[in-house]
Amino acid sequence: MLEELKQKVYKANIDLVRHGLVIFTWGNVSGIDREKGLVVIKPSGVDYDSMTADQMVVVDLATGKVVEGELRPSSDTPTHLVLYRAFPEIGGIVHTHSTYATAWAQAGKDLPNIGTTHADYFHNAIPCTDDMTAAQVQGDYELETGNVIVDRFIREHINPVHTPGVLVKNHGPFSWGKNPDEAVHNAVVMEQVAKMAFVAYSVNPGLTMNPLLVEKHFSRKHGPNAYYGQKK
Amino acid sequence: MLEELKQKVYKANIDLVRHGLVIFTWGNVSGIDREKGLVVIKPSGVDYDSMTADQMVVVDLATGKVVEGELRPSSDTPTHLVLYRAFPEIGGIVHTHSTYATAWAQAGKDLPNIGTTHADYFHNAIPCTDDMTAAQVQGDYELETGNVIVDRFIREHINPVHTPGVLVKNHGPFSWGKNPDEAVHNAVVMEQVAKMAFVAYSVNPGLTMNPLLVEKHFSRKHGPNAYYGQKK
Amino acid sequence: MLEELKQKVYKANIDLVRHGLVIFTWGNVSGIDREKGLVVIKPSGVDYDSMTADQMVVVDLATGKVVEGELRPSSDTPTHLVLYRAFPEIGGIVHTHSTYATAWAQAGKDLPNIGTTHADYFHNAIPCTDDMTAAQVQGDYELETGNVIVDRFIREHINPVHTPGVLVKNHGPFSWGKNPDEAVHNAVVMEQVAKMAFVAYSVNPGLTMNPLLVEKHFSRKHGPNAYYGQKK
Amino acid sequence: MLEELKQKVYKANIDLVRHGLVIFTWGNVSGIDREKGLVVIKPSGVDYDSMTADQMVVVDLATGKVVEGELRPSSDTPTHLVLYRAFPEIGGIVHTHSTYATAWAQAGKDLPNIGTTHADYFHNAIPCTDDMTAAQVQGDYELETGNVIVDRFIREHINPVHTPGVLVKNHGPFSWGKNPDEAVHNAVVMEQVAKMAFVAYSVNPGLTMNPLLVEKHFSRKHGPNAYYGQKK
Repeated sequence: MLEELKQKVYKANIDLVRHGLVIFTWGNVSGIDREKGLVVIKPSGVDYDSMTADQMVVVDLATGKVVEGELRPSSDTPTHLVLYRAFPEIGGIVHTHSTYATAWAQAGKDLPNIGTTHADYFHNAIPCTDDMTAAQVQGDYELETGNVIVDRFIREHINPVHTPGVLVKNHGPFSWGKNPDEAVHNAVVMEQVAKMAFVAYSVNPGLTMNPLLVEKHFSRKHGPNAYYGQKK
Repeated sequence: MLEELKQKVYKANIDLVRHGLVIFTWGNVSGIDREKGLVVIKPSGVDYDSMTADQMVVVDLATGKVVEGELRPSSDTPTHLVLYRAFPEIGGIVHTHSTYATAWAQAGKDLPNIGTTHADYFHNAIPCTDDMTAAQVQGDYELETGNVIVDRFIREHINPVHTPGVLVKNHGPFSWGKNPDEAVHNAVVMEQVAKMAFVAYSVNPGLTMNPLLVEKHFSRKHGPNAYYGQKK
Repeated sequence: MLEELKQKVYKANIDLVRHGLVIFTWGNVSGIDREKGLVVIKPSGVDYDSMTADQMVVVDLATGKVVEGELRPSSDTPTHLVLYRAFPEIGGIVHTHSTYATAWAQAGKDLPNIGTTHADYFHNAIPCTDDMTAAQVQGDYELETGNVIVDRFIREHINPVHTPGVLVKNHGPFSWGKNPDEAVHNAVVMEQVAKMAFVAYSVNPGLTMNPLLVEKHFSRKHGPNAYYGQKK
Repeated sequence: MLEELKQKVYKANIDLVRHGLVIFTWGNVSGIDREKGLVVIKPSGVDYDSMTADQMVVVDLATGKVVEGELRPSSDTPTHLVLYRAFPEIGGIVHTHSTYATAWAQAGKDLPNIGTTHADYFHNAIPCTDDMTAAQVQGDYELETGNVIVDRFIREHINPVHTPGVLVKNHGPFSWGKNPDEAVHNAVVMEQVAKMAFVAYSVNPGLTMNPLLVEKHFSRKHGPNAYYGQKK
């Protein structure tokens, strides 16, 4: 069942390790089959070294029930499902505790768009979510983690395709993309821009970004007039 | 004698190097056989490259005397013994001079719990010990190093199982766990949360932690209602 | 056509990855044949893993037209061409988004000459360009990026042979040299001095440089009385 | 001639690369035969990849003349010779531009003894030299670099055996030891304590060191009552 997607999700999980974004089991990737309404996700707490594509767990998008797989799905599965339901354009989601993006999440600050590296992938600041309430934390916590993300995007009319990532306050980054591979790509970008912003603000706390560059670089890689890379 | 434990302690010492926590011989791991009252520990100042499991030294928990082994035990052995005597739940101890955890120890500050990565493993701040007195330093120094650790835990009713690590002021981190492998795991976590906290406070010196997340994440991985990972 | 130069440009691009200056496709190297008036440059958005020397694109220095190659040249090609036209002494150009040099570019500050490592290669501060105007960004952006670089060098009489690199504000570093290999070498130096300057200013925001050392170290490696290295 | 020492000096130079202290050719190691009054040192500007033990250059301690070798000795040779003449106890010297130690040298500050890692190897702060004068820089520069180092040690009665390293202001670190291997060892320690001090002061600019620990840790590894490591 969904062997091809399982293979992609498995490979994307391994790529997290290869890119240095994950220690131990601190990360997970999922992918979705929109037609079937099924999500494939990494099992919870399984070592990357011994993990196989067969162990990926299939979960129903609507109900959250496990449809196939002998292991428990990632404990963050409810967060992934909320994001897939709210953002119909996305096909893959990544969660990590990567060093610099997590540090910004712990700092509780939006990660500002201060360079073309950021603008090539993220149109605006990468938002940091609000503090979760007692009702949210003590209730269905992982589902509510998805809700605080979606709340911020809806409230401020942030387009999740143009801003494919978020910092969950005091927790860490989530990123997404049109498939699991692109979600991993965006997780790497978030970590790198978080590291560069840490250094840049240390060097110059009063730095400014040229807003013209944001529009230029984002549109150079995205939208109808993109001209970066090879024609596809 | 204790061949299986020697093998585990040896492997845990090698893992410190693999995880990048140790330069030269600046680290040691021990494990305990509670029934026999014997501790197995790395020899002092021996290169990791040439070290073998056979070289691990067996020491009596009560007396500190070497029971087996041709080499001197780690000079930090008396610290390990004090911790094993004071914290009967623990089965393995690690000491390193890992970069970021040691920097926090040099800074002389408790490492605050500012994120879920920390809360997944350590219930509270990782405490930093008091300054040692002349009597302590000039007396039985390594034993007194253990005492300043234990003093802090007893005085503030810190549960060593819920806070499996400490920073010795101007020195470096100790961590522990139910066995040597878990103690190494916690040493890796300490180094990573120390690094992330360094970055987070640089980005936002006035950052705040949501206390609700501390309880949630700690109980998600620990205690009777834990639901992270696979059922065991 | 230009097989030897293609090989050199290809190798220089691969060296960027080997030196840790490039993530994904975020970098490009070019080289020039001054006699023929032709520039060889990396294709746009092609993975380094699958890239071959044959894929290097040949572009006319005067017109910017592709003379040979089936792929689109790097989107930064017009920037390279402006630099080759303005700086007739140079034979190779590198652009990266390397972490620390890019952070300084995001900080919008000249990278000061504060040590002999810097002075061994760059006579003065590595300049950071002005903010680009709406006309520049919305016009022929990559060409104008070259122009803001050249403007700064001309306006302040900076010798591009003695200061073989620049920070484009909110964007990242460009470096150059007498051939592609030397341009890569200078890119590595820029990244390293950017990292050391970040640390040095964190340790001592009021640090000062001895101007005598600038002259001494620069002339020790450059000019008629150079005495570093072996006689050539 | 001096084949064994050449082999040791060669190996020590390669170890600098292995320990990540050197980029390109930015480092050199020498060793001395005190009986013969001859110093063996790395040739200037030679790649580490292609370097062989045969290429090490033999220089006369008293005159600085090359006694054997077809290549020019390191341009820093006169600095090494001044140190060998002033500090008769030492047998090997290292110079690098390693990242964090060089950053402290650029910051122009003594590297304070703020932890037991430092105290295990360096009894006091690692001193940073004075600014060099015009006469020194424009005269016999590399020899005068040695003189500013020695001046500081003599003026403040610093024992070079107990403080086996120095930061040359706006330049970088020199370290030494009883042989080339120990000099490399101390170079690794300086880089690591420089990195930890950078982080520690960022976390707590007002940190304090317990002076009792300095004495304890230094004497634990050095002097007649040392008890770290195995009996020799």
